[in-house]
Amino acid sequence: MDKTIEMNEKTVIAIDAMGGDNAPGEIVKGAAEATVESPVNVILVGDENRIKAILEKVEYRPEQLEIVHTDDMITMEDVPHEAIRRKPEASMILAAKLCSAGRAQGLVSAGNTGAYVLSASLNIPRIAGIRKTAIATVYPTRNAQKRKDHFSLLLDIGANIHCSAEDMVKFALMGKIYASDIKGIKDPTVALLNVGKESYKGGKILSRVYKILDELPGVNFIGNIEGNDVMRGLSDVVITEGYVGNIVTKTMEGIAETVSQLGRYAFKRRFLWRIGLIALSSGIRQLKELIDYSEYGGAPLLGFKEIVIKAHGRSKAKAITNAVKLAAKSHRDNICGRIEKEIAEFESLK
Amino acid sequence: MDKTIEMNEKTVIAIDAMGGDNAPGEIVKGAAEATVESPVNVILVGDENRIKAILEKVEYRPEQLEIVHTDDMITMEDVPHEAIRRKPEASMILAAKLCSAGRAQGLVSAGNTGAYVLSASLNIPRIAGIRKTAIATVYPTRNAQKRKDHFSLLLDIGANIHCSAEDMVKFALMGKIYASDIKGIKDPTVALLNVGKESYKGGKILSRVYKILDELPGVNFIGNIEGNDVMRGLSDVVITEGYVGNIVTKTMEGIAETVSQLGRYAFKRRFLWRIGLIALSSGIRQLKELIDYSEYGGAPLLGFKEIVIKAHGRSKAKAITNAVKLAAKSHRDNICGRIEKEIAEFESLK
Repeated sequence: MDKTIEMNEKTVIAIDAMGGDNAPGEIVKGAAEATVESPVNVILVGDENRIKAILEKVEYRPEQLEIVHTDDMITMEDVPHEAIRRKPEASMILAAKLCSAGRAQGLVSAGNTGAYVLSASLNIPRIAGIRKTAIATVYPTRNAQKRKDHFSLLLDIGANIHCSAEDMVKFALMGKIYASDIKGIKDPTVALLNVGKESYKGGKILSRVYKILDELPGVNFIGNIEGNDVMRGLSDVVITEGYVGNIVTKTMEGIAETVSQLGRYAFKRRFLWRIGLIALSSGIRQLKELIDYSEYGGAPLLGFKEIVIKAHGRSKAKAITNAVKLAAKSHRDNICGRIEKEIAEFESLK
Repeated sequence: MDKTIEMNEKTVIAIDAMGGDNAPGEIVKGAAEATVESPVNVILVGDENRIKAILEKVEYRPEQLEIVHTDDMITMEDVPHEAIRRKPEASMILAAKLCSAGRAQGLVSAGNTGAYVLSASLNIPRIAGIRKTAIATVYPTRNAQKRKDHFSLLLDIGANIHCSAEDMVKFALMGKIYASDIKGIKDPTVALLNVGKESYKGGKILSRVYKILDELPGVNFIGNIEGNDVMRGLSDVVITEGYVGNIVTKTMEGIAETVSQLGRYAFKRRFLWRIGLIALSSGIRQLKELIDYSEYGGAPLLGFKEIVIKAHGRSKAKAITNAVKLAAKSHRDNICGRIEKEIAEFESLK
């Protein structure tokens, strides 16, 4: 009986309509499409006139869509801590407040990452025992573990710069819960990104993280992995501090960009190479689909009591639709509650 | 007059004949070839009988080659600090001692990196003012600066894990001298690898490095670059701490490996894809040559009073020949003396 009620009561996702390189157009279109494709309610926060003008041209379910107006917004160029202070009515901040007020159960923005982390931190309570939140990204791998999918989860990729050993252990616990949900496996493997395989590597903090995880029941810890193992998919979850995670993720993006430029160069350079690229085009298309971030729906910011999803700054409508659906699914699967329980169990062992 | 004498007196390079995945065979062959290709003297340190047996099958100049025998060696699997203590007569350590005794002016090994850094640190004096040495790697880029070559220099990639802001500033000074020599440009650009462009990014140490470099005359500092800029070649020199440099470099290696595996997969999968790869093969070969580490001759370990070159563990003869030639050239170009002068100037500003 309770379950039926829960299923009929739709999850509400608050969306920063003004954040991201393609806002508000692609954000509003993506949110509108989410109401058509799934039983989710969305609240679009931003310039009401602009939002309405965009909605006029697309299909959506009016009964599932609400607009909360504000004139202010934080841009990609704003300095996060200054913008948060100077623009208390910014769309990103108001959207976070809808979560803390209980009007929404999830948050999505494609805007300024630093400002988004700050505005979530200032407005949405953290789970007890979590001192540092973490941005987790799903990335494609060579699937060395032969899972049904070929994705791994890397966190933190930049919610914070540095953190303590215990913070990183909690990244492992949060990552484990999230990965077990999205990959549909019970006991995901967890690895620590380090400069060598041996337990003593990487200095005091990393060797302490190794020791704690190695002795922790309930975590399927496989030890350290190195940079060249990241893409191999040796582990379902890879943990690191935000400083390294950010640089590694962006290095991977940079290399993808380089490969695609090389392709364009080769296409122009020689007739034979052009023929080769045309023959390979269906393979290249399959590969692009495989590594297209818009399919994954964005990166969760883990450690809050509500679902917080960061969509890529370059997100188009499809990526936003997926981010909204991901937020709603994560709420239905009670990710935050399950993380809360996991952290409480860890704390009780101390 | 002095100059003539210097040019006639050959540079002597001490080589750890027993270090690396393909030792001693490929190491000895590479060293032998170096005596044929260039006016360099080499001392091969290792098992004399094995070395002689290999030399019997290759061409070399006997008057330029000497063998120093030892039974002991450090393997890739040895734990560095234990091996250094337990094997004082290891080939790697004796080779370093030849440098400190003045019998050689440069050192080359393809062996265990950690043990190599330690054995150099324990036996070869550091330049005054250098607290942390740095491994510098040359890597191919998209050459955004439109230089004659398309390489940049990244350091430290793993001589140390963490370091102070001043250590990193000295990495910039050392990298500047080395890059200006190998690239043949007067004023190489220097950038700091960070999580964002802004000067305040990356925590206390990185923002302090930014401030010092930004105010330092004589360093062409262009500010922070992010992970996705690494491959673009925005800067001739990129500085980072060993922890991040190691993980980024290995991530790049891992991606190269993934791309080549994808190629093999595509070749087997469909006839059309096979045709495509064959049509592209000359391009792929050119690309492989471009990113082949054996062409670069290895990574210098900067901060010592003598030239110390780390060749890749997988080095074959050609890579060793290039490493020996690089060591000799670096000595002729007085890299260590120029770094010493640069550091002394920086210290005098304090």
